[in-house]
Amino acid sequence: MLILAFPDYFKQAQRLANRLDVPLAEIALHHFPDSESLVRLPPSLPEHIIICRSLNQPNDKLIELLLAATTARGLGAKRVTLVAPYLSYMRQDIANQPGEAVSQRIIGKLLASLFDDVLTVDPHLHRISSLDQAIPIKNAISLSATDAMATFLKQQFDEAILLGPDSESEQWAANIASQTGFDYVIANKYRWGDKQVEMRLPEYDYANRPVIIIDDMASTGRTLTKAAGLLQAQGAKTVYAMITHALFCEDAEAHILNGGIKAIWSTDSIDHPSSLIALDSLLAEAIRAIS
Amino acid sequence: MLILAFPDYFKQAQRLANRLDVPLAEIALHHFPDSESLVRLPPSLPEHIIICRSLNQPNDKLIELLLAATTARGLGAKRVTLVAPYLSYMRQDIANQPGEAVSQRIIGKLLASLFDDVLTVDPHLHRISSLDQAIPIKNAISLSATDAMATFLKQQFDEAILLGPDSESEQWAANIASQTGFDYVIANKYRWGDKQVEMRLPEYDYANRPVIIIDDMASTGRTLTKAAGLLQAQGAKTVYAMITHALFCEDAEAHILNGGIKAIWSTDSIDHPSSLIALDSLLAEAIRAIS
Repeated sequence: MLILAFPDYFKQAQRLANRLDVPLAEIALHHFPDSESLVRLPPSLPEHIIICRSLNQPNDKLIELLLAATTARGLGAKRVTLVAPYLSYMRQDIANQPGEAVSQRIIGKLLASLFDDVLTVDPHLHRISSLDQAIPIKNAISLSATDAMATFLKQQFDEAILLGPDSESEQWAANIASQTGFDYVIANKYRWGDKQVEMRLPEYDYANRPVIIIDDMASTGRTLTKAAGLLQAQGAKTVYAMITHALFCEDAEAHILNGGIKAIWSTDSIDHPSSLIALDSLLAEAIRAIS
Repeated sequence: MLILAFPDYFKQAQRLANRLDVPLAEIALHHFPDSESLVRLPPSLPEHIIICRSLNQPNDKLIELLLAATTARGLGAKRVTLVAPYLSYMRQDIANQPGEAVSQRIIGKLLASLFDDVLTVDPHLHRISSLDQAIPIKNAISLSATDAMATFLKQQFDEAILLGPDSESEQWAANIASQTGFDYVIANKYRWGDKQVEMRLPEYDYANRPVIIIDDMASTGRTLTKAAGLLQAQGAKTVYAMITHALFCEDAEAHILNGGIKAIWSTDSIDHPSSLIALDSLLAEAIRAIS
């Protein structure tokens, strides 16, 4: 077995390789001035390789995965596993208007055509219940970071309220609540556009208590700051955020920091100063289980 | 038949649709803050659709082509033709180092899996002789803009020297020379990196004559300005450039304009102020031939 990591996931892949005691090599990546990508793998590969990369900012990365996985097969790899802790295109699971591409299924099929196994963490599955409905292969494995998140939160807080900002986040908030013993509540969210979010908090005694907003990702950060504003108006003591995937697009970070959130924590699915929760143990266990 | 154009190729597709007298619709394209693409087609499609877009800055565009072509099939299209006057990834036709992805073949197979026909103009084929070696479908059609270029040049010049800056450009320079009656010469080029180019001009009487550099594309513009500098040192009267594809990456345009080239002309494969040579007639004829 050999772990191959793209440069943007190399640090995390090093932790994973150490934990599995498996050799690691970097995939060499060059971008030409016209934005074409050049990918180079070690020329000699074992039968089973594991390609590691999260798929935030996905289009370049998907084309580079296509280049890497196809080249790996040509170099003799018989089993090619993808470890993509953040998996993109999972939200577009229906045509909201007639004629819209159902990107989840199309990108899922692309991944299914390239890989024998796909491992990811807390994918944003909304109207489907299991990952193999999106990525039609046997080993489409959805892991959850909520155990690691709960452990982290118990070290920081004796008690707190967990807030899921919308119904989709309930799965994660409920899970962390059951492991920490903290209360949890779920808000109602209405999205009018990429950056326009309306929200209503449930009735609850927020006054003078710490609240941790729980979500799978922060993209523009508008959901988090909307929730933080409402919580502060209700007298919450301090507002924190705990997310799986720190996408942080455009001005998201400044927006979050100016929006009344005292600290934000995330997993290392995407490398970021907030990424204090390492996923290597979770991923290593899953890789051992399928190997 | 229906022509579907991505927004970045809509102007040119309008000319093509007018010439063919075929209806045209725009493919709606949205980029989310996290860089995921959303593609929407007209919900009702005829049996044969023609998707139009040049593939410069290719990775986003390739993923969006995958989304569009797959969605078109789901909406009932039986024949899906791609008109991509500029086709990317054609230069990486071998592994220059062991383990390198042969991107031409991998991207070519992706396109072959999505489209029944692929039409392009002056693709950069180096070590292969026909486009279907890169894109393994029957209708992988490589057109040439050299007729249109020759017509344009004859309107501007009574006589001139055509310079191909390297052996790969000889095919286009020779073709234009035979139609204009102008002399042509071919330089020797050595490329040391994306922006490092060495060149030697053949012995020729350049003094006080106009010289037109002929090439299939200008990416960083370094090849053009290197040639222009050498030509001026040899006493050439004025140096022009005529290229098929105006890629113009990063600072290319400023570099070319400051590099001693009086004017640059290109086809409209990529929309640009230099794109004076329209390809609609060439493309329309080819579409009629396969329909």
